[in-house]
Amino acid sequence: MLLYVADLLGVAVFSVSGALAAGRARLDLLGVLAIAAIAAIGGGTVRDLLLNRHPIFWIRDPTYLTVVAAAALLTVGCAHFCPVPRNTLLLADALGLALFALSGAQVAEAAGLPSLIVVLMGTVSGVAGGVIRDVLTGQIPLILRADIYATAAIAGIAVYLLLEASTIGPQWAFGVGFAVVIALRLLAILRGVGLPVFHLPG
Amino acid sequence: MLLYVADLLGVAVFSVSGALAAGRARLDLLGVLAIAAIAAIGGGTVRDLLLNRHPIFWIRDPTYLTVVAAAALLTVGCAHFCPVPRNTLLLADALGLALFALSGAQVAEAAGLPSLIVVLMGTVSGVAGGVIRDVLTGQIPLILRADIYATAAIAGIAVYLLLEASTIGPQWAFGVGFAVVIALRLLAILRGVGLPVFHLPG
Amino acid sequence: MLLYVADLLGVAVFSVSGALAAGRARLDLLGVLAIAAIAAIGGGTVRDLLLNRHPIFWIRDPTYLTVVAAAALLTVGCAHFCPVPRNTLLLADALGLALFALSGAQVAEAAGLPSLIVVLMGTVSGVAGGVIRDVLTGQIPLILRADIYATAAIAGIAVYLLLEASTIGPQWAFGVGFAVVIALRLLAILRGVGLPVFHLPG
Repeated sequence: MLLYVADLLGVAVFSVSGALAAGRARLDLLGVLAIAAIAAIGGGTVRDLLLNRHPIFWIRDPTYLTVVAAAALLTVGCAHFCPVPRNTLLLADALGLALFALSGAQVAEAAGLPSLIVVLMGTVSGVAGGVIRDVLTGQIPLILRADIYATAAIAGIAVYLLLEASTIGPQWAFGVGFAVVIALRLLAILRGVGLPVFHLPG
Repeated sequence: MLLYVADLLGVAVFSVSGALAAGRARLDLLGVLAIAAIAAIGGGTVRDLLLNRHPIFWIRDPTYLTVVAAAALLTVGCAHFCPVPRNTLLLADALGLALFALSGAQVAEAAGLPSLIVVLMGTVSGVAGGVIRDVLTGQIPLILRADIYATAAIAGIAVYLLLEASTIGPQWAFGVGFAVVIALRLLAILRGVGLPVFHLPG
Repeated sequence: MLLYVADLLGVAVFSVSGALAAGRARLDLLGVLAIAAIAAIGGGTVRDLLLNRHPIFWIRDPTYLTVVAAAALLTVGCAHFCPVPRNTLLLADALGLALFALSGAQVAEAAGLPSLIVVLMGTVSGVAGGVIRDVLTGQIPLILRADIYATAAIAGIAVYLLLEASTIGPQWAFGVGFAVVIALRLLAILRGVGLPVFHLPG
């Protein structure tokens, strides 16, 4: 249930981020819907393909695509009437990253996989939607431009796994892990905080 | 049978488009074959992976790869002897888009999926081959540069589904849907017609 | 057994190439690990998805991810203390290409697929890791920038298949095919040797 809500919310916020990115690339209205859909379901689709979960989540349950379309159309409508704050895309992306990182980790856990793979699978689920969105709209992927991106996902999943192994309930572990991803991304966005960079000359 | 012919034709025209794109990127001859193959089978492969249809169409039936190689070599040979008209790549891409959009939709229909997913699956099948071709040859994907691209696929599939639900036969529905995709793409290419654009400042 | 060692080595050298590419893109340390992992397991993952081999190799056996992490961290550590020779990334990429091309071909062979598909599957396995690495780090894929890239993989797999059909043992066939890929890539890197180019005006 928690997983279902997390997936629905992740799909909605990545749909908003896809619609905004498509708006910047000046796509037409159906193109906006297509990019929003592909961005929104990309991360979960990669997760389901890698774990051989069929039918894939949005094929099994059409609610997801309804949510995608509603979120994208609302975004287009709102952007028409009022200016979109500068960081809306970054914020929607941070929420999507956090939701899919943790839901991807939970799915890998439920399949009985070891912790190292749970972390990697969650990270891939979290970043894939945004990467596909950025590649399709001709941007350098945010995972490269942003400070603390994969890092935020890895840290949040690690905290989730540690808390879950303690006496705290899984919902709380999920919530704290989610908060860690969001907090790290917001810190990076607002303050320009970053890890030490590994720099090689060209 | 119709599906098989549509897939073979789609593979042939996307192979031509891949060979032309590889020629523009100045790849060597085997590189041209590799890009043509990946472009030609990309859309159908994504469709088969998403729908868990194994073995994937070109693994089950090697005819596809023979068609890919023949189409790519013919393209290279023809381009050697006569100039390629400016819009050949766009035309081959439009044919591939139409064929894979409708065959992708038919496969999703045959799997008993709801209409919304049939439309999305057809669109993804139609655009994926061209997107992979453009990303691998260092171009901004045509889905972004072109007017009415995803839109043409969505409209054609919708017309196909509506006609099929009427008393007209499925072959006719396929043909009209195909004509809608091609007509919309040609209109966009020749006249620069487009949907209203959703534009956000950078 | 040979396949297992080839996969482990391929994962290690693509992890080095991913870490070096991430260093050029100035990612933070966990970002380096994420790109190294995605680059290293990309080729084999595409191979396993296309052939419907589940669980995917790195999910079935976590040794791979340990090797990825160790190789990436060693790369970062070494690069910190001494300058990385200019062609290290190209050399690591050539080794990864050769190893995954031949292991991909062997897996396709073991699945009883015809030679044409064995060659294509090997080529895709060999190039996919590097392509994903280059797309994620904002580079034009090496398959486009380099002379004799897909060509080297195709030639090496063809030699492997021909020798295997003779009286020579499969290990020797693997070794000679591997040497052919490496030799062609080194020739191309060191001497700028290339196949005739198929060139179309823009």
